[in-house]
Parts: sequence; C-alpha cells; structure tokens
Amino acid sequence: MANGLPNPLLTAGAARSLVDSVDAFLFDCDGVIWKGDQLIEGVPETLDLLRKMGKKLVFVTNNSRKSRRQYSKKFRALGLEVTEEEIFTSSFAAAMFLKLNNFPPEKKVYVVGEDGILEELRLAGFECLGGPEDGKKNILLEANFYFEHDKSVGAVIVGLDQYFNYYKMQYASLCIRENPGCLFIATNRDPTGHMTSAQEWPGAGTMVAAVSCSVQKEPIVVGKPSSFLMDFLLKSFNLETSRMCMVGDRLDTDILFGQNTGCKTLLVLSGVTTLSELQDASNTIHPDLYTNSIYDLVGLLQQ
Amino acid sequence: MANGLPNPLLTAGAARSLVDSVDAFLFDCDGVIWKGDQLIEGVPETLDLLRKMGKKLVFVTNNSRKSRRQYSKKFRALGLEVTEEEIFTSSFAAAMFLKLNNFPPEKKVYVVGEDGILEELRLAGFECLGGPEDGKKNILLEANFYFEHDKSVGAVIVGLDQYFNYYKMQYASLCIRENPGCLFIATNRDPTGHMTSAQEWPGAGTMVAAVSCSVQKEPIVVGKPSSFLMDFLLKSFNLETSRMCMVGDRLDTDILFGQNTGCKTLLVLSGVTTLSELQDASNTIHPDLYTNSIYDLVGLLQQ
Repeated sequence: MANGLPNPLLTAGAARSLVDSVDAFLFDCDGVIWKGDQLIEGVPETLDLLRKMGKKLVFVTNNSRKSRRQYSKKFRALGLEVTEEEIFTSSFAAAMFLKLNNFPPEKKVYVVGEDGILEELRLAGFECLGGPEDGKKNILLEANFYFEHDKSVGAVIVGLDQYFNYYKMQYASLCIRENPGCLFIATNRDPTGHMTSAQEWPGAGTMVAAVSCSVQKEPIVVGKPSSFLMDFLLKSFNLETSRMCMVGDRLDTDILFGQNTGCKTLLVLSGVTTLSELQDASNTIHPDLYTNSIYDLVGLLQQ
Repeated sequence: MANGLPNPLLTAGAARSLVDSVDAFLFDCDGVIWKGDQLIEGVPETLDLLRKMGKKLVFVTNNSRKSRRQYSKKFRALGLEVTEEEIFTSSFAAAMFLKLNNFPPEKKVYVVGEDGILEELRLAGFECLGGPEDGKKNILLEANFYFEHDKSVGAVIVGLDQYFNYYKMQYASLCIRENPGCLFIATNRDPTGHMTSAQEWPGAGTMVAAVSCSVQKEPIVVGKPSSFLMDFLLKSFNLETSRMCMVGDRLDTDILFGQNTGCKTLLVLSGVTTLSELQDASNTIHPDLYTNSIYDLVGLLQQ
C-alpha cells in the first residue's frame, strides 16, 4: 500500500517508481489488452514503451478457449507482436501440470472445454477425448439406459466450454468418481468473462462449479489465482517475483494471483471491476495501485 | 436418538412405537419407492399396510422433471394408487412459491429445467419461457454478438435439466443480473440422483451451482431441505410435524428436511446413502432410525 491509503491511484511518481522497481510486467489479456475481439485504446503504445524501457512482457490469461499458438495469432491480428513464448494460458498450464506431474502417457484426458485445451494437450503428447465434439452428444435419461465411460481416463480437465452439456457433465463425473486416482483439474474458476465485446458471459467457474457439485470434490486449479502458473513461469524465465508487476482487471484472479505469488499489483478499470467495487467495504483484495487503463502509464511516464 | 446410539437400527419395538407416534408418513420417492423406473421390492405391501393402519401418506420429491399429474401417472404405471393431492414435487413447490408471494401475473418466468416445471407454472397461471425448447438453441460467442433477453422476466427457476446448455445459463444470468428484482429460485440442490435405475446422474444442484456461480448470488430453495415445502404442506393438510415421519434415502435433503421441520426421521439404505456413509465420522446428519428399505416395516410390524 504505497501511500497508506487502501487503494492508491497510479500517479506520475508511482508510475516512475513502479517501472524502476520491476523487470517484468505480467498482463492479463481480457479487460486489459482487449475486450472480446476489440483492442483497448493505447495498448500498442504502452507495450512499445515498456519494451523500449527494457521490460520483459508476459501475457497470462485464464481463458482456455485458445492455445498459445491461437493466442499469438490473435495478438498479431490486433497488430501486436507477441510471441508464443510470451503467452501463458490456462489451457497450456493444464497440459504443463500433467507433464510436470508425470501423467502416464498410456492414460487419457477427458476434456470439458474447447479447442485450446485439446491443442495444448496434443502438443504435450497426451491423448484426449471430449471437447467440442461431445457438445453434440445427447443422452437418454430413460429407465435402463447405461452410460459407458472410458476406464483409461486418468484426468479430467474442466475449462470454459460454450458447448457444455449434460452428457459431458456425466462423462466427467463418472471418470472422476469411478476411475481410480483420476485427477480433477480446473483451468480456472472465473465466474464470468468478457467473451464478447458487449457483454459478460458465464466463465469456466460455472462449468467447474457444476462438475464439482456433481462429484462433491474440489478441483486442482492451474490458472490464476493458483500459484502453479507462476511456478512454471519462473522455471521458464530468469525472474524474481518481487521484481514483477501483475496487471489485471479482476481482483479475485489477477490481483490475488499477483499477491499470492509476491508480485507488485496494478488493477486497471478497463475490464470487469468498477471503482465502486474496488472501494466497497466488502472488498478484501487491495491492489498496490490502480488506474483506468494501461495506457495511463504512457502519459504518466512522459510527464 | 431413540436408544442413545447415534444411528439406531429400526427394530420391531422401534417400528411399533414409530407407527404409534405418527399420523403421517412423508416419503421421498427416488431411492425409497423406486429407482429410476423400477419399483423397490415390497413397496406396495408397505403402503397398503400403513394405509390400513389409518396413516396419511404423502410423497415428497425433489425431482422437478415431472408435474404432480405426471407423477401420479408414474405411480399408477407402477401399480400404486396415489392421487395428485398426495404428491409434492419441487416443480409444484416452485409454482406455489410464486403464487404465495403474489408474483405479478404480467411478469414472466424463465425456466432452466424440464416439462414438470413448465406444466406446474402454467397450471398456476404463470407465463413461462425457456425449458427443453431452449436446449436446442446455440449462441455465437463471437466478437460483436449481443445476447438479448426478455426484460419482463421477473423470476428464474432452476431445476434438473438434461438439456442444460450455455445458452440457458447466459439467459438466466442476464435476467437475474439485469432485470430489477428478478427472483432466483432453485427447485433443490441435490448434487446427484438416480435418474436411471443403474446409475447416479448429475442433479439439479449442478445446474444451480453453475447459475449461482455466474451471477454470484445464492438462490431461494423451495424443495427439500428447505422448510417452504413443509409450510405449504401443513397449510394443505391438518397435520402436526411432531406427528409426522420423514422417510428418505438422502441425509442432506430428506433427513435434514425432516429435522429442519420437526418430523421424526427414518433413513432407508435402498437409495444413495450407504451404511458406511451414515456411520462415517464426517457425517453430521443423524436420522432417528435407519433400516434397509421401507419393506422392513411390514416384517417388523407383524412380529
């Protein structure tokens, strides 16, 4: 808490000392870099300035709908030069979690989620089933219908899934309940997200809540605010968390993630959190600094 | 706790004194009367015996997939003579909740659920939308897609829904979040249920958990273990809860419901709860008595 106030606004002085005290900026994407498919104003200038100042930039998103490769295409389509190696998605984190935990290659992974998870799992060498394809499948909730599932599934990954249905919920539940040792992994628990520019939509947290209720078990979370993503990130880069700043629009994922892992934290109001939510007495998560959008850095650093 | 033990088994003496001390038996259906579409052994004889002893029988189910009319057909198909008036479903409870709370007739109800809820709402004179029909609807989670919802929806009811999808989750979320005063009602929160004879399936609790996560709000629950159903039941019959016995197979709904409302409670092991779950140190819900199935009453009362 820079100046003793619970939520200090980013000023020119605070911006300067923030930039001086960190080597890397970790950016959440949705609500910070873009909203849906729309770039937020001033983002290219801000990223350019920070790169020119020698800062390392990392993009950390809980959105599991795309793989790192697909995200790097999205960045390029929006006119931003960002490499795959600079992108950490919760879909990638889920695949890396299995890899680091020596998930047996003969076991399969059942996916409640979209293509991003499937692609990252395949790139990591895992066999998976489920995904968008199972969104077309129906069940017959009738008398003697028996739902079969693959006994060789050793992990279920649940992420955001616009094709979520009862079939997948039962498939995931049976694997978790009946396959001995089957892992239950959540990409993240965000209740909502700006999946389109205009509106909030149910987030991965809703699918996770449904499956978790069905199996009466809590998942392992690999995305923000879990520290797994950070541990993996630190292994990939030569960085210290005390010299990093996490920039995000969500208190309960981005800012909490930054705090859980020992980063400095900057909340931007260009996404889901409003100033009144930040300042509400019920809020217990306080960033080190807040500002309207990352573009403010450009103006403040040039004063 | 009849004999000082936390979970006393039903004996001949206990059965006799139970029957002597109550005027009415409330039966859960799934796991007590039937499993899926299969009648549990000895049920007709047991119900006959209790009716002959002058006991009032009431059937209380959290399953909202059918209306009271549809349930009475199911009872008849299984060879049991049970009238609509003896049946209390969570679908009926949801409609009665709106009626007793003077829900404005010009407002609409959005339903995440199946035909039972739609039928009970229409019988009670309410206009509703959603239901199985919306299970066929897709959304386009793309750039500028804008999801419209009906601003005159004044209540969302969430129950078991084998046609649950992302479309309905967003529709329900927008109504609850954006329509002023919109009620969020759950038929029940059962995590699972024997929707078929052979297996457990995700229950209404999973759909409720998903919507509740999306809107970050808790629902009003009208089914078991909420006391709303009991208050309504007491208004319908001239009964005292201290002279009722709730018979069910679930600790967290049936037995808790009985205890919340001051009934005697009898757990049967013919459904989802096993003896080891009942006796597990982590279990905090203890019925007055337990037995294998309601058929045991016949043998014990004739000793």
